[in-house]
Amino acid sequence: MLKNALSSLLLAALAGPAPIRFTTGEAYSAGAVAAYRGSHDKAYAHIDANLARHLESIQRWVRQPSVSAQNRGIAEMAAMLRDDLQKLGFKEAELVPTTGHPGVWAYYDAGAPRTLVLYLMYDVQPEETGWTVDPYEGALVDRDFGRVLMARGAVNQKGPERAFLNAVESIIATAGTLPVNIMVAAEGEEELGSPHYPEIIARYEHRLRTAQGVLFPMSGQDRNGAAGMAMGVKGIVSFELEAKGAARGGPQRAEIHSSLKAVVDAPAWRLVQALSTLVSEDGNTILVPGYYDDIRQPTLEEQKLVNAALPDLPAREEAMKKSLAVTRFVDGLSGRDMLSRLFFSTTININGIWSGYTGPGGKTILPHVATARLDTRLVPDQQPQKQMDLIRKHLDARGFADVTLRQISGYPPAQTSVEAPLVQAAISVYNKHGATPIVSPRNAGSAPYYVFTDRLKLPMIPAGLGHGGGAHAPDEYLVIEPRAGSRIASLAQMEKFYVDLLYALAASRG
Amino acid sequence: MLKNALSSLLLAALAGPAPIRFTTGEAYSAGAVAAYRGSHDKAYAHIDANLARHLESIQRWVRQPSVSAQNRGIAEMAAMLRDDLQKLGFKEAELVPTTGHPGVWAYYDAGAPRTLVLYLMYDVQPEETGWTVDPYEGALVDRDFGRVLMARGAVNQKGPERAFLNAVESIIATAGTLPVNIMVAAEGEEELGSPHYPEIIARYEHRLRTAQGVLFPMSGQDRNGAAGMAMGVKGIVSFELEAKGAARGGPQRAEIHSSLKAVVDAPAWRLVQALSTLVSEDGNTILVPGYYDDIRQPTLEEQKLVNAALPDLPAREEAMKKSLAVTRFVDGLSGRDMLSRLFFSTTININGIWSGYTGPGGKTILPHVATARLDTRLVPDQQPQKQMDLIRKHLDARGFADVTLRQISGYPPAQTSVEAPLVQAAISVYNKHGATPIVSPRNAGSAPYYVFTDRLKLPMIPAGLGHGGGAHAPDEYLVIEPRAGSRIASLAQMEKFYVDLLYALAASRG
Repeated sequence: MLKNALSSLLLAALAGPAPIRFTTGEAYSAGAVAAYRGSHDKAYAHIDANLARHLESIQRWVRQPSVSAQNRGIAEMAAMLRDDLQKLGFKEAELVPTTGHPGVWAYYDAGAPRTLVLYLMYDVQPEETGWTVDPYEGALVDRDFGRVLMARGAVNQKGPERAFLNAVESIIATAGTLPVNIMVAAEGEEELGSPHYPEIIARYEHRLRTAQGVLFPMSGQDRNGAAGMAMGVKGIVSFELEAKGAARGGPQRAEIHSSLKAVVDAPAWRLVQALSTLVSEDGNTILVPGYYDDIRQPTLEEQKLVNAALPDLPAREEAMKKSLAVTRFVDGLSGRDMLSRLFFSTTININGIWSGYTGPGGKTILPHVATARLDTRLVPDQQPQKQMDLIRKHLDARGFADVTLRQISGYPPAQTSVEAPLVQAAISVYNKHGATPIVSPRNAGSAPYYVFTDRLKLPMIPAGLGHGGGAHAPDEYLVIEPRAGSRIASLAQMEKFYVDLLYALAASRG
Repeated sequence: MLKNALSSLLLAALAGPAPIRFTTGEAYSAGAVAAYRGSHDKAYAHIDANLARHLESIQRWVRQPSVSAQNRGIAEMAAMLRDDLQKLGFKEAELVPTTGHPGVWAYYDAGAPRTLVLYLMYDVQPEETGWTVDPYEGALVDRDFGRVLMARGAVNQKGPERAFLNAVESIIATAGTLPVNIMVAAEGEEELGSPHYPEIIARYEHRLRTAQGVLFPMSGQDRNGAAGMAMGVKGIVSFELEAKGAARGGPQRAEIHSSLKAVVDAPAWRLVQALSTLVSEDGNTILVPGYYDDIRQPTLEEQKLVNAALPDLPAREEAMKKSLAVTRFVDGLSGRDMLSRLFFSTTININGIWSGYTGPGGKTILPHVATARLDTRLVPDQQPQKQMDLIRKHLDARGFADVTLRQISGYPPAQTSVEAPLVQAAISVYNKHGATPIVSPRNAGSAPYYVFTDRLKLPMIPAGLGHGGGAHAPDEYLVIEPRAGSRIASLAQMEKFYVDLLYALAASRG
């Protein structure tokens, strides 16, 4: 025990990430990119004339539950996506069997020189308690922001995705075809960590390599209407730690009476103790030796992107705090330090923990098993397997070899350069719409973009106008018709943005 | 952080209970108590002739769920108990309203000089997963031990209780009345920690004080047929620790996306860290300063009782391990050290812990609240409020003032002397039945006996023949008809034991 406590002491003194070093004060200027000058009035008019029907298409999607974690409505949603793509004119549109939930592949051959890959996810997170509307009703409600669609999947990701397809419909209806070819590569397991997406990509790999880039439709305006676009995503590993009664001690078959704690080892305490060694007392510094070692310093481009975000950051921080219902960020961080932590730091987080009797009243038992589900977010150049190995090694070294580490899923981070033609085309369209984006080096969230950026060497961005919130939380929403005076885009504007983006990409230097 | 780690270091070095000191090698001899010599053949014959009906009465009780934690079947079971007592001839038999579930009071006036108080609990634990039969079917199944009743409440406590009342029925049916007066003081909240039992006692306090002692019917034979009787119980406090997002950090309204862990404090980590400071890494030594201070050394009588249990302890230890499905006791303890730990040590145990998403699949969230339900078992002279204060003070001192401590229920330990006339009468009856008991200084479990021993100054014992297991666990059972060659008592023998006990008490010196 003395030895372990001494280890803690040394670890606490030595642990933590290397300080993030900025070597330039220069800021990237998205506003300096020339605004897109095209105008596609027939398509815009078609959008305006068909907006009610376009909204209904989004509602039809969110009314179809597609909870990948519970295999609920997955087959139905995959079929709905395929059928919608066929109706839009994608000659190829098919389900892609995987060893998990099926993917959807589709191809629209416009005979164009350029090809855009559309990454779509058709699954959603399980609904949680605390919703004020039925999460699958497709409710339209009036809130502070104006009229919003409040539903599971409204913003993550059915709303923006179907809005993009609405734009595709309006271009084809008015111009007869698209300015670029589109390949759709959709999955139904994004919320599970995309364990089988590589199978889908492998099947169409040669064709995908011919594309100029990959788009993920995403409504990237915040509550004040400020647009954002991220040049990368963090990697993620979902894993479980579990303590069970075994040779090390504790009941192996079932829970026992809690009075026997006097002479029987308790798996729940083992799990708590093992977990507690992973992070500092405030939960914010990882104490697993070597966990930060593979993190590279921010590149010059990444530094410039952070520097560009600083001027209006205070207001965005306040909006973020309000939206998350937090009174502070970790360690009271703000400004460049807060952004650096958000973009450049790895995390270990408890998604859920459970053991014993968790119902009403009480049950005085000593549980025979205790489990925690965690995720770790990874930044370049961390790799999933290496980080898991470090945790396992740490647990063993600290005397927790009896605690099982079970990896559920995982993939590495991904990064795209702001200089890629697809990115420059997107910025030019944002600029045309008066919504010059805050281009961030990375999204703190995760998506399996590595299959595109690392495997296919394609630039990959999320882009789009519109504002939503509550992804993975109650009352998820997407603004459909903002209140007067708001800088948030309406559904019609979201769709017109995508019209312009397809034409801008067709005209790009890429 | 350095300061906290240093505290850990010092605590780990200094913590732990004072060594338990034995000052005598003498052993108490229950076998030296003269066997009870009475014989009540008419009552025994009545039991044998009515055994099928007596078993049906027990089945009727276990078929009535009475889960206090879920308020399920409580009113029905209270009424069933009252009605049964009336039918047996208790002229007084009534529900006792409390601010929680009702108690039941009954009185059988035999016009006898001596009075026995019968403590009964009519509630049961919630059923858990892992049952091989319907827990409320009242199933009779053939197992290793012979024919057993397998049901929730079979052994804890409906089976032994109703067996006692069957014995009462057979005495009255054959002798016209009982040899002692009986007061029944039953509660429906034992499994909740008996929060309102003092209200029931208060109402009948003056009458209860006139009794000679208190009996709790309990089938105290182990799987090998060895009988046991405990001279006391531990106290218990059930409490919750909870971490929530608040001024200290963390989301206050609802869970948020787990990627935000990079900049948002996590209540789940705070709970894990707070919990981890309560005990050593193996979960077996409490690190809360002062937690062991009020524990008195074992009395001479307690030491003699432990010494008496040592000769056949190895076999009992193996039986205990098998029954609990454990391969070892904490720290590899055995013999007197194991018994001392079981009887004389305080514990802190996690009954349940829950936070975030605990369903199938995964959900990458940062939960806004994390909760653990714990119990602590107390030995003389620990007192509930003092121990809770120590935990609160410790959490505050370690920087966890943000973690809520919520006491659910609690009561102190209780102790009876082996020299009390009721105890001597019970031992004499065990000896008559060829089942000289291992008299232990204490049961590791808890019951609100303090209301009798401390408040009413009455001796209080659990006593009875028979074997059961799985209290608070799947497939709870009570042996009804043991296999040939077993030393375990049958239901008929259990009931005859109680017949003898009532007559032995009537004839006692008390």
